[in-house]
Amino acid sequence: MDYYSRQISKLIQELSALPGIGSKSAQRLAFHILNMPTEQVEGLASAIVDAKKNVRYCKECFTLTDEELCPICRDKARNHKVIMVVENSRDLAAYEKTQKYDGVYHVLHGAISPMLGIGPGDIRLKELMQRLQQDVDEVIIATNSSLEGETTAMYISKLIKPTGIKVTRIASGVPVGGDLEYIDEVTLLRALEGRTEL
Amino acid sequence: MDYYSRQISKLIQELSALPGIGSKSAQRLAFHILNMPTEQVEGLASAIVDAKKNVRYCKECFTLTDEELCPICRDKARNHKVIMVVENSRDLAAYEKTQKYDGVYHVLHGAISPMLGIGPGDIRLKELMQRLQQDVDEVIIATNSSLEGETTAMYISKLIKPTGIKVTRIASGVPVGGDLEYIDEVTLLRALEGRTEL
Repeated sequence: MDYYSRQISKLIQELSALPGIGSKSAQRLAFHILNMPTEQVEGLASAIVDAKKNVRYCKECFTLTDEELCPICRDKARNHKVIMVVENSRDLAAYEKTQKYDGVYHVLHGAISPMLGIGPGDIRLKELMQRLQQDVDEVIIATNSSLEGETTAMYISKLIKPTGIKVTRIASGVPVGGDLEYIDEVTLLRALEGRTEL
Repeated sequence: MDYYSRQISKLIQELSALPGIGSKSAQRLAFHILNMPTEQVEGLASAIVDAKKNVRYCKECFTLTDEELCPICRDKARNHKVIMVVENSRDLAAYEKTQKYDGVYHVLHGAISPMLGIGPGDIRLKELMQRLQQDVDEVIIATNSSLEGETTAMYISKLIKPTGIKVTRIASGVPVGGDLEYIDEVTLLRALEGRTEL
């Protein structure tokens, strides 16, 4: 990229190191940024630095936040006796968007994967078990329906069962609006197994 | 997004204002940034601010650069008597990647578009004509083969012809590796019109 001057090359290089941003998108973004008003550029840069500087894990649910407790764990109107276990903060956000779940969360920051050498000690499982010493009615396991997610779900349910706390798993099946023709066989089988009476 | 804490929401919002970045990608990018080493995050933020702070137009070819002359105009090994006219700095980069062009460039920063109210005075045309008062052998017009690009090419060629300088236009036709079946009719007709003897 020596046809760009040094600082522009540097910017393109930094941007293309981000996930999902190839060299073409990085170029496009760089030139967009160069054409933005200075004030807006500084806003972007300081949003990046500020968020990073103050980021930490919520001391209750371990989601990424910039305060001691995340907005959800701080919310007294939510049901703190129901805990949904998710793999990461983005999955938490996905469930929050439904606006129908009023329990709290526990963010594992990963899933058990023997293939990648990620064991139960590498995710926030110990912290989940500590939370269960408080008064908890139900743990809903909402890890992904991938091999790793299922392994993790199985592992957690075995761990929790002896405590007598109710453990559930979100359903897997055909997505709403999904056309059967385009859905993989494993999902179709899951949908069949999980059928409910009408 | 009140389920994210304030600074994380702010970061997601700033990122999703960038072109081609939807709210899902912005979330993914934000969490990626939050997980990056602090040093790297600061590198990204300062690359953004530094590039913006020092960006300017090359005083010769008007590409975006951070010095008085861009690396190409500064390069004495290039043929400064052949000028390729492009719409923007990204198009310049595209031709540089071929590594086969050894002339210089002129960046218009746009194309004539009566629809959008962009006239000849709104792009760097006057500056191109000024450059032609020096010793120039050929002007290669490499504006896009869109309506605006073609209009601009036509306009420039009419402007330059009286000076006696050779004006050429890059060929349009079927892209290499392109499957005829999927190529639009206008391109197919162009390819036919531009056919060469074998």
